[in-house]
Amino acid sequence: MHLARVIGDVVATRKDQQLHGVTLLIVQPLTPQREPVGKPLVVADAMGADVGEEVFFVRGKEASFPFHPAEPPVDAGIVGITDYWTAKQC
Amino acid sequence: MHLARVIGDVVATRKDQQLHGVTLLIVQPLTPQREPVGKPLVVADAMGADVGEEVFFVRGKEASFPFHPAEPPVDAGIVGITDYWTAKQC
Amino acid sequence: MHLARVIGDVVATRKDQQLHGVTLLIVQPLTPQREPVGKPLVVADAMGADVGEEVFFVRGKEASFPFHPAEPPVDAGIVGITDYWTAKQC
Amino acid sequence: MHLARVIGDVVATRKDQQLHGVTLLIVQPLTPQREPVGKPLVVADAMGADVGEEVFFVRGKEASFPFHPAEPPVDAGIVGITDYWTAKQC
Amino acid sequence: MHLARVIGDVVATRKDQQLHGVTLLIVQPLTPQREPVGKPLVVADAMGADVGEEVFFVRGKEASFPFHPAEPPVDAGIVGITDYWTAKQC
Repeated sequence: MHLARVIGDVVATRKDQQLHGVTLLIVQPLTPQREPVGKPLVVADAMGADVGEEVFFVRGKEASFPFHPAEPPVDAGIVGITDYWTAKQC
Repeated sequence: MHLARVIGDVVATRKDQQLHGVTLLIVQPLTPQREPVGKPLVVADAMGADVGEEVFFVRGKEASFPFHPAEPPVDAGIVGITDYWTAKQC
Repeated sequence: MHLARVIGDVVATRKDQQLHGVTLLIVQPLTPQREPVGKPLVVADAMGADVGEEVFFVRGKEASFPFHPAEPPVDAGIVGITDYWTAKQC
Repeated sequence: MHLARVIGDVVATRKDQQLHGVTLLIVQPLTPQREPVGKPLVVADAMGADVGEEVFFVRGKEASFPFHPAEPPVDAGIVGITDYWTAKQC
Repeated sequence: MHLARVIGDVVATRKDQQLHGVTLLIVQPLTPQREPVGKPLVVADAMGADVGEEVFFVRGKEASFPFHPAEPPVDAGIVGITDYWTAKQC
């Protein structure tokens, strides 16, 4: 999983029918020191995250688990909103 | 999922039989600021996207879900055509 | 999926028994402008591609689908030989 | 799998219900020569690893196997704490 | 799949119980010209490869297939020891 900040959302009228009702957000992956790392991506959100919040997201089919028994075709999804984290420099 | 623009298509007569009837497009992944990012790739399209349109695509086996019950051997597919998106600089 | 050119093959006597009879080729991924991009990799081939031909390959478990009902342990496979493709500069 | 050092942990009250009780750590991938390589990521831990310990982690759905029969939506997980490793320069 | 050279091994007493008896090696991915490419990683080995040998490995769940019916949580595994390969410059 990766730490990230929610930076936006995506609106799409024409989409796979299994995606109807699934919130799509844009997140920027972060280092533990809150620096942007890698490119922003689109994630499904079952947690009700808001723009500006810090979250962690999962990649792969597991991103659809929170929507069970529906199986939306998603490959990344927010699975938690962080309270805080700790990380030592390596 | 990733934002992208459709930039072309692929024509192949000799291909896996499960791919017959599956439209194959070439997309360029985009940053939220519409700059090209990463290399173009070939995606399956079940949404009827046209060259020039902005879409989002999914990676992995999930890319075959829109073709259910067929299971074409694809690892990336367009699952939505975007109306618009919002993204703050991080 | 990715565009690529077949540049070689791999011969291995000692290999997983599910790989016996599976052709293993080396491909160089290409941009739509036919420039090499990324590193060459080893792919399974069920399409009868020859060295020098332009193909597209799939990553992940889907690469084993053309060998169904066998399930060789492969993570990349040629699923089509391209006739041609089109791509606009983005 | 990748060698890594545990450098921190993540605390999240709001998370997917399947993640309750799952320890989430931050790891820094390492080269065999113990240099940091790539970006830190968040992993599930079923091994009881401590901050500072050297471990190896797995990516993908396999990361959830140690939690069987639960299926938490995780894409990376510690599956071993290393005693030592050997590696020649290539 | 990727060409690689075996450069070491990993010893871990505390590990997922499905990993007991699974040999864990460190491999350095190679270009077809035998130059190191990318970072070394830890792989499962069902082929009896030795340090110094040239192999090819698979990523993903398929890496566990040689251990069937066991399902160790591995994401990379050696599936063949190469005799030789050919590759033209692209």
